[in-house]
Amino acid sequence: MPRKAEVRIGIDLMGSENSPDVLLKTATDLASTLPPHVKLVAIGTPALASRTDLPFIHATETIEMDDAPLTAIRRKRDSSLCVGLKALKEQRIDAFVSAGNTGALVSCAKMTLSMIPGLLRPALLALMPTRRTPLAVLDVGANVQCKTEHLVQFALIGSAYQRARGVALPSVGLLNIGSEAMKGTSEIRLAYQEMQRLSLLPNPLFRFAGNIEGKVVFDGNIDVLVTDGFTGNVFLKTAEGLASLILDRLNENLPPDILAQMQDQLLDLQRHLHYAEYPGALLCGIRGIVIKCHGYSSPQAFASGVREAIRIASEGFLQILQNKLLAYSTERK
Amino acid sequence: MPRKAEVRIGIDLMGSENSPDVLLKTATDLASTLPPHVKLVAIGTPALASRTDLPFIHATETIEMDDAPLTAIRRKRDSSLCVGLKALKEQRIDAFVSAGNTGALVSCAKMTLSMIPGLLRPALLALMPTRRTPLAVLDVGANVQCKTEHLVQFALIGSAYQRARGVALPSVGLLNIGSEAMKGTSEIRLAYQEMQRLSLLPNPLFRFAGNIEGKVVFDGNIDVLVTDGFTGNVFLKTAEGLASLILDRLNENLPPDILAQMQDQLLDLQRHLHYAEYPGALLCGIRGIVIKCHGYSSPQAFASGVREAIRIASEGFLQILQNKLLAYSTERK
Repeated sequence: MPRKAEVRIGIDLMGSENSPDVLLKTATDLASTLPPHVKLVAIGTPALASRTDLPFIHATETIEMDDAPLTAIRRKRDSSLCVGLKALKEQRIDAFVSAGNTGALVSCAKMTLSMIPGLLRPALLALMPTRRTPLAVLDVGANVQCKTEHLVQFALIGSAYQRARGVALPSVGLLNIGSEAMKGTSEIRLAYQEMQRLSLLPNPLFRFAGNIEGKVVFDGNIDVLVTDGFTGNVFLKTAEGLASLILDRLNENLPPDILAQMQDQLLDLQRHLHYAEYPGALLCGIRGIVIKCHGYSSPQAFASGVREAIRIASEGFLQILQNKLLAYSTERK
Repeated sequence: MPRKAEVRIGIDLMGSENSPDVLLKTATDLASTLPPHVKLVAIGTPALASRTDLPFIHATETIEMDDAPLTAIRRKRDSSLCVGLKALKEQRIDAFVSAGNTGALVSCAKMTLSMIPGLLRPALLALMPTRRTPLAVLDVGANVQCKTEHLVQFALIGSAYQRARGVALPSVGLLNIGSEAMKGTSEIRLAYQEMQRLSLLPNPLFRFAGNIEGKVVFDGNIDVLVTDGFTGNVFLKTAEGLASLILDRLNENLPPDILAQMQDQLLDLQRHLHYAEYPGALLCGIRGIVIKCHGYSSPQAFASGVREAIRIASEGFLQILQNKLLAYSTERK
């Protein structure tokens, strides 16, 4: 058997709602369970380096959650977030996982790693469970306000992502407040028309399923859900909050004997629906693998994020994604 | 005992995703269960009048779901929606319940009934279950795009609503993608500042809880959640879709004996979380009681909407709401 190439995952220890020590412990524990060709590289302030045996990249500064993104990445060049993305560009690591300031991460990734040609903006993509197959939702927080062309590009990115996952002709829906073509803001109405037009050209990248309401999103009839970063973020976090409310109610209200009998079912539901366990979102559109975990991610969720980064880096997923997008844009010229 | 004053609820039979006959049957069945002083008044095309014993108001036209709202209310003056709102203005009915075109309902209500003085726009308010007390969410669909002053007025309307329900000093949150004051669009950032300012004046109408993420909305630490009509509608319908997914999974996956033992718990969860059973939203800010049900409301949900209208009309709730708002704006002058 050929020796597997080394996969190095950079871990941002700083700037999340968990303390750097908690994330360092999570990374250290996780590292001991990984195959030898996978290395976790911790990135944080020098004081932390003495407390771990993991490979370490020093970064003297920290971008905080309430720092203004553009100012922060200009003034804090030696922050873990900027240093990690630079290491990714220089191929000292193969992927970067951060639970830090989203705006700073997106802006710094765009500037440091540059975009895949033809794409205007990075988007955060989260894979969510439905009644059927997993749904790629984007943008879940990279772009608070989106124009029509951004929404249309999200459809292309999401479709390339699902194709790379093996879906032959992904079905794309536009998150809206009604199914009729005239619903929503003017940006959304124009995006509807443009996505319909693209899906009717020869060799389309996707099938257009029209407007999709929150109520039917979880039916699993589509593969990609397109929305702006504000609505998408609210969508993701609302799903998380409600799933947690329901599971907690069940846990509180059921008699212990029934709970014991239901343990497997509840754990399964929890795994599928408790978004706090979710691996975070993939920052798509840039030339590099960046996973963004929620700032308040539990250590388990952060560990899922790292495992997701390992999977994507190992499978050459980004290359497939880039190739699908490039082939599509060349064909369209 | 004094004889109770008659309460007449107008029922829009037309323009929803249910057939007029289904809604007529729902209204007829419900009417037979109501106390004698409550009358349901059906509003629809003349052909339907012969099929019911309910009091009936004729309307020859129907506004469809995909009609452009402003054109529809101008061209279809004899639609059930316009005729019903006119009957409300003329006090031939005390409340109006519709599952028709939201945009047309909002615009026609604003023009026909006029606004409560000082308010700019009507908002749809939905009461949602949380871990603790019910949460008033607005706007859930009347205003697709909102400026700062609209969001701030939603805080006032929602607070007056919760005060009328008995909450002494309602706590108001702003739905956003992070807790920091600089998160979100410029409208939301300015609304944050203005809501904070209002809550720090003497005798405030509400306490400001700052930005609230979807993840913690259901914790029940606030009484009012302010958002624009697009995000609010997505929020409401996402909650609905996910609750239904989880409850269906439980129903499908649990062994029959456990299901039987859990029946009460599941029904309770269903009642609290299955938004399809929910009574619809109150159109606030206008001088009249208008309840909007989802276009796809089940007959049971539509019946809940009618019962909600009866409750609000019987309790003089609108008068209390108006008085709270008027007293507040007078004090502020």
